[in-house]
Amino acid sequence: MSDEKYFQNITTRERAIFEGAITMGALFHQFVGTPVSMGSAPSLEKAMEQSLTLQPCISSVKVRIDRETLENAENEYDYLSLTGDMLDVRVSSQYQEVKVVVRMHYIEELQYPLMYVEEVD
Amino acid sequence: MSDEKYFQNITTRERAIFEGAITMGALFHQFVGTPVSMGSAPSLEKAMEQSLTLQPCISSVKVRIDRETLENAENEYDYLSLTGDMLDVRVSSQYQEVKVVVRMHYIEELQYPLMYVEEVD
Amino acid sequence: MSDEKYFQNITTRERAIFEGAITMGALFHQFVGTPVSMGSAPSLEKAMEQSLTLQPCISSVKVRIDRETLENAENEYDYLSLTGDMLDVRVSSQYQEVKVVVRMHYIEELQYPLMYVEEVD
Amino acid sequence: MSDEKYFQNITTRERAIFEGAITMGALFHQFVGTPVSMGSAPSLEKAMEQSLTLQPCISSVKVRIDRETLENAENEYDYLSLTGDMLDVRVSSQYQEVKVVVRMHYIEELQYPLMYVEEVD
Repeated sequence: MSDEKYFQNITTRERAIFEGAITMGALFHQFVGTPVSMGSAPSLEKAMEQSLTLQPCISSVKVRIDRETLENAENEYDYLSLTGDMLDVRVSSQYQEVKVVVRMHYIEELQYPLMYVEEVD
Repeated sequence: MSDEKYFQNITTRERAIFEGAITMGALFHQFVGTPVSMGSAPSLEKAMEQSLTLQPCISSVKVRIDRETLENAENEYDYLSLTGDMLDVRVSSQYQEVKVVVRMHYIEELQYPLMYVEEVD
Repeated sequence: MSDEKYFQNITTRERAIFEGAITMGALFHQFVGTPVSMGSAPSLEKAMEQSLTLQPCISSVKVRIDRETLENAENEYDYLSLTGDMLDVRVSSQYQEVKVVVRMHYIEELQYPLMYVEEVD
Repeated sequence: MSDEKYFQNITTRERAIFEGAITMGALFHQFVGTPVSMGSAPSLEKAMEQSLTLQPCISSVKVRIDRETLENAENEYDYLSLTGDMLDVRVSSQYQEVKVVVRMHYIEELQYPLMYVEEVD
């Protein structure tokens, strides 16, 4: 059984963009709020990468949690709640011959972690 | 300040698809797991709709949580944890003159709540 | 069918505290990350209250999202991603004759949204 | 700076139960909905354990995602969205000399993943 019939109305390129975008939105809203520290950041990055790579048409996910923010955490408990501003993520999707990289990172001038299409081949 | 410069490499139509897809992925992963019952479903649907409509290029979000599933909940506590299978969602995005509807609902033959582009104008 | 046999080893008061604490942890981690604005805050507060009130032994939940923070949002898109620092929450639990209020709000000197037992009767 | 003054009204034992319960509620609602497969389950378990162990008074967290459920996943995409029914979790909290284990696992007769206090020393 295949899902192809649901995607007849968009191009190959649009499909690759569509799937990359879904996965970026999913990653942000699944993991924001997770407790994180210098010590736990590597295992959280790995879980985010491996779990989101399972989604349709995703070939790889690279997540970087900002270590400087974690080092500067000065509350009583030495950990933070993960926010979008701390994330730099690249989601690579592929549909047929088209490869797309969707990127998210904090952009100073927008004061916002922007999601955009960084590459389309 | 504008984010336009980050979207020079994709078409107007691709931008509308991109933003609709992000919002659908976000909606699923933000709200799955929320306790829900027949009584609370309307307020949850409304919050999902209003919060996700805030995202860039989103003109409307319509959420329907399946009442039949809620009625059949037979555990000790009369509520369920929201799953993707219980959701029927339409996210309408618009960028310039292009309007897109991204849909998610459970598809029997795929045994999966599929996200796809239902309309592109 | 009842869950009583699983709670033989704790007191009535401990049970009321236990259930209030679970619900507070649940609320934080379910909803942090949700897009929110001045306009959408009321529907989000209501959904948080109604959905978490469904949990075992919970008699009421009161949620207040800080409007000052929302008014000061100055990014391109006029909304924020909900954080724990913006929340003031009271979860009221009751088990038999014991009533408990679990509170969470941001505490300046701890630089942290602390969860604690505000009242036990 | 210390948070001790906020906990004057509860016993040492109640504090240990309180913190364990918060963390169990947090774990469930943070991670339910995450895509998971046989291959990704180990990294997800590890991230859940390391991130929740950061919370106040938590000495260890053990998470087991049910492999039988994952093996039986028969949809088009070979992964599932994590649900509470697939989880068996032990959160160990300690406050001063009191140790508590909060457990969550699916209980057939309740048709529900119950959270309860498994041990108090």
